Formats: sequence, structure tokens, C-alpha cells
Amino acid sequence: MVDIDIEKLKSGDRRSLSKAITLIESSRPQDQLAAQDLLKKILPYTGKSFRLGVTGTPGVGKSTFIETFGQHVISKNHKIAVLAIDPSSPTSGGSILGDKTRMDKLANEVNAFVRPSPTSGTLGGVAQKTREAILLCEAAGFDFIIIETVGVGQSEFEVARMVDFFLLMILPNGGDELQGIKKGILELADSIVINKADGENLKIATQTQAQYQSALQITTHSSFWNTEVLLNSSLQTKSSEELYKLFMNFQNLAIQNQQWNKKRQAQNIDWYNSLIKDLIFNKIHVSKKLNKHFNEFVESINNSNITPIEAAHKIVEEIFSGLEK
Amino acid sequence: MVDIDIEKLKSGDRRSLSKAITLIESSRPQDQLAAQDLLKKILPYTGKSFRLGVTGTPGVGKSTFIETFGQHVISKNHKIAVLAIDPSSPTSGGSILGDKTRMDKLANEVNAFVRPSPTSGTLGGVAQKTREAILLCEAAGFDFIIIETVGVGQSEFEVARMVDFFLLMILPNGGDELQGIKKGILELADSIVINKADGENLKIATQTQAQYQSALQITTHSSFWNTEVLLNSSLQTKSSEELYKLFMNFQNLAIQNQQWNKKRQAQNIDWYNSLIKDLIFNKIHVSKKLNKHFNEFVESINNSNITPIEAAHKIVEEIFSGLEK
Repeated sequence: MVDIDIEKLKSGDRRSLSKAITLIESSRPQDQLAAQDLLKKILPYTGKSFRLGVTGTPGVGKSTFIETFGQHVISKNHKIAVLAIDPSSPTSGGSILGDKTRMDKLANEVNAFVRPSPTSGTLGGVAQKTREAILLCEAAGFDFIIIETVGVGQSEFEVARMVDFFLLMILPNGGDELQGIKKGILELADSIVINKADGENLKIATQTQAQYQSALQITTHSSFWNTEVLLNSSLQTKSSEELYKLFMNFQNLAIQNQQWNKKRQAQNIDWYNSLIKDLIFNKIHVSKKLNKHFNEFVESINNSNITPIEAAHKIVEEIFSGLEK
Repeated sequence: MVDIDIEKLKSGDRRSLSKAITLIESSRPQDQLAAQDLLKKILPYTGKSFRLGVTGTPGVGKSTFIETFGQHVISKNHKIAVLAIDPSSPTSGGSILGDKTRMDKLANEVNAFVRPSPTSGTLGGVAQKTREAILLCEAAGFDFIIIETVGVGQSEFEVARMVDFFLLMILPNGGDELQGIKKGILELADSIVINKADGENLKIATQTQAQYQSALQITTHSSFWNTEVLLNSSLQTKSSEELYKLFMNFQNLAIQNQQWNKKRQAQNIDWYNSLIKDLIFNKIHVSKKLNKHFNEFVESINNSNITPIEAAHKIVEEIFSGLEK
């Protein structure tokens, strides 16, 4: 069994942090118990970070951005952690996104911690483990955390639900057929960044910016924050400073408007409720008998032999049948 | 107890249909049992309709559209039912949206059935009852069903999940600040209709059309159908015929592409799964002991005394504690 030295972890020791994340990612039952115990113990030392989500299709330049921006953040006296969620990573281990070799300079900084995507197939999914890894990084004193993901599957939606600020990166583009952005993602973004806005791309990037600004006007903004569309070039420190100011401004406004903690609490309660649902469906599928009944009902619904209402009632009655009132 | 004559209902008798919908809307336990029994019996006679969802902010002209379009559909030898979901309707009874008096002509047609919004507060919510009412209307031989809702709360999302075709109505608009369309709604629409596109409005309607067409290009369309932006004037029969053709074309394409039944089955399984979740949370909150524990955990999470993970595990363990393995 992996043994984690909590004091060393709290002192910011990157090896202990690595080991701790490996522990929470483990699917062995005894490791899971130890992980829960560890998380319980470090909970008081969590929460003091800026949690930034970054998404965008492969090739948009996320890694280069994080490499450049991350070093800028360190120059501002932050400690930065980069976690990656890569739904395309093979179960066996390796992961393309967040590969350490792609963020050489950042990974070698004393005040940086770069962690590739966990292997999928862990209980509760990769995103679930990332929420826990955020807490561990915070306990280890990392106060600027970037969660990187690609536009595959549900991971973008899940990342948006675990961060303070959600950044969507896109490429400069002619503007006709746009870049396969998933339904709903645009509207989750706290900011959209047109990346690689330099050299020959600059003109087209400005056009893309205008187009997205216009598209964003269609939906309402009820909160204290309006989604902005910015240009970024990882070749220029100016861009990093502009974005850094944007994030700090967001944080200040959110705190002023009592929305900072409110959002985090809401995310936690949301997490709690969806975990309950996940765990219940997990329990249903683990129980041979319940799982059999559940699937029989799916078939009956598809054949119009039972209404979804009746089927749902029957499953739920069965789950609660043993419980004293 | 309300007694429903199923043969009369199946013959299309509107009084029996009204009584049946009242039964499913009742929150009395014995009525609920009778409602489930009724739904079970009529299930084989359901499914043979075009289910059209219509949404838009108040004042966009939904009722006038449905009045005009409904009569056109009847002229095509359909029987039309109009159900309304009005999340703003008072618990006490009355409802603004779907008020019979607003669709005088349609309500007086022999081949039409217009039902105002059910009162809220019923178990499972108003939207849930509407899903059941759709089945009853179908069993009564209504083969074109319109579900009308306003842009309040979650009702638009719920309607999108229970219909074959989801229509968003908007007003002609200068194009700067747009019309408070909720995040995500635009992307659920199978078609967007710029309403009141006549007279002086026509020019501005065409501009609005272009703007929405451009906004829609940003997200991907993977299915057989591309969301179109159309102009509509309820003053012209031409508009009704154009929309009617659009719907029939959609249905033909969906059937050809094996998507018609697939979508309905997916909606049913989705309904089944969310009912299970709803019923489980219902059970949690009905049980004094579980509800107390659930709320204590919410408080502990908000005070950072427990992780959402640990809290969720504890609640789920408690639920399943009585169940034999």
C-alpha cells in the first residue's frame, strides 16, 4: 500500500504529490479507502487556488499556451499545477494530451507541477479523479491550477463544472464552416481566446473575433461577467499578461459580487448530487439481480411493452425495498 | 375516483380525454395508481403522431401561430392536440399560456383538442405529466401534437427532450442585444422561425434571419438535419403550408435515416433514467432519516468538513443497506 506523508505533501513536495495522485487514481479497494482517508485529512488545506479550465480542439495550441502562460504566472509568484483530462488516452497508461515532454520548460520549473492525464477506466471516471487531484494540488500549496482537456466526449462539460474560469481556445478561421465546437460549449465559456493571432494570421483572427462576439450576443448574460473574445499569441508575453489580468479581474469581481464561494459551493453540491446518482447506477449495475431487471425494462420500453414511468417505479421500489421506513 | 372509459377514449371522445388527463395530473395516491393502470392499457395505441415542440418568449406570437397553423393541419386531415407547459402558472389552477380563450377558433374545431397547462406542484413536475398526456392524446387518435412552452425555467429543455421536432420562435429584431434566449436553447432547435415577418417587419426579419443563420454555423451538425432559419407570418396560409412541408420532410428524412424511432427510444430510455434519479431523490427526501442525513451532508460540504465524495458514498450506502446482495 502507498503511504503518503501528509506533512511532506503540505510542504509542496512534488514527489509526495505525485504519489498521492497515483493513490487516488488507483482502483484497488484498499487504495480507495486510503485515498478517501487522505482526502479527508487534507480537506482543510484546500480551496486557495485559481482553478482555470482550458479546452480546445487538438492543434489549437493549448500546450504551447500553457507553457508560456504558466511561466508568466510563476513570474507573478504563483505556484502552478497543470492537470490534464484526455478522454482519448488509452486505458493502458500513456496519454497524448498533457504529455510531460510537451511542456518541457514548465515541467522543469521548481514552482510548477505537470501531471499527464490519468488512465481511464477508473471508478467514477477520469474527470472525477481530476476533481480530487485539484484538492491535493491545493493542499500542496499550488495556487494556480490549470485543467486542460480536448473537445472529445463529455470532458469539456465536466471540466467547466469543476473550475472557477472556463477558457475556450479556437483558431483564426475564415468564418464559414466553423471548428466543430460542441453544442453548448460556447455558452459555458467565461472567455474565448482566438489563438495564434500573430503574423499573417492576425487579420483573420480579428475577423474570427468579431464573428464570435456577434454569436455570443444572442444568449443572455445574467451574471456579473460578460464573455469576452480575446486574441492570444503565445509568442508574446503581452498576451500572457493580458490574460493574467483578465483572470485576476474576474476573481475580484466574483468575490465582490459574492459569487466566488457561491459558485464553488454550488459546484460541490452539484458534485455531491451527481455522485449519488452515479453511485446508485453503479450499485444497480453491480447487483446481478437489479442489473438484470434494469436491462429487461430497457428492452420492454424499446418494445413499448411498459411505460418508462412504470419501469422506473419498479426499479426504485426494488432498491428501497430493504430499507426501514 | 375518476373512471375512464378506454373505448370511448380510443374513439377520440374529447370529454374522456379531458377526464383522463385530469386523472394523470391528480396527486391523490389512488388516482396515481389508476393513472398508471390507464397508461399501461393505452400504451399499445400510442406513438402514431408528429410531436412538435414550440417555444419562444411571451409576445412572440405562439398562440396566433398555433391557431393558424393548427387549422391548416386540420385541413390536411390531421387531428391536432395542443398541450401547454406553463412554468409560470399559479399552483391554484389558472394558467396564462395555453388559455383556451386565446385559441378560440382552433378549440372549436371538431378535430382539435386544446388543453391548458396543468397546475404545477404535481409529483414529477408539469413536464412529466405532459409526457403522459401526449400518450393519452395519441391513444385518442390525435396524430399531430403541439407542446407549447415559454422561455421560463427548465421547461424548454424538457420539451425538447419529449418531441420529434423542436421549434424556436423569435421576433424580428435590430440585431444588437438579442432576445434573452436561454443558453443552449438555440442549439436544441430543429428550426428557428422569425415570426411576424410581414409588412414593415419584413426587412428587419430578413436581417434577423441572416444573423441567426450565421450564429448557427458555429456549432456542428452531425445528424441528417441542418437547423434552418425560416420566416413566418400567421397572416399568410403560405407560411403554414411551408412549415407543414418542412415537418413532413423532416419526418421522411428521419425515417429514411433510421432516426425517427431511434430518437423516440432514446428519449424513452432517457426518461426512464431520469425518472429513476428523480424517484430516488424523492425517496431520500420523503424518508425523514435519509433526508436529515442528506441535508446534514450538504451543510458539511458547504463548511468544507466533508468531501462531496465521502458524503455521497455514505448516503448511497445507507440507501442500499437493507438490500440483499
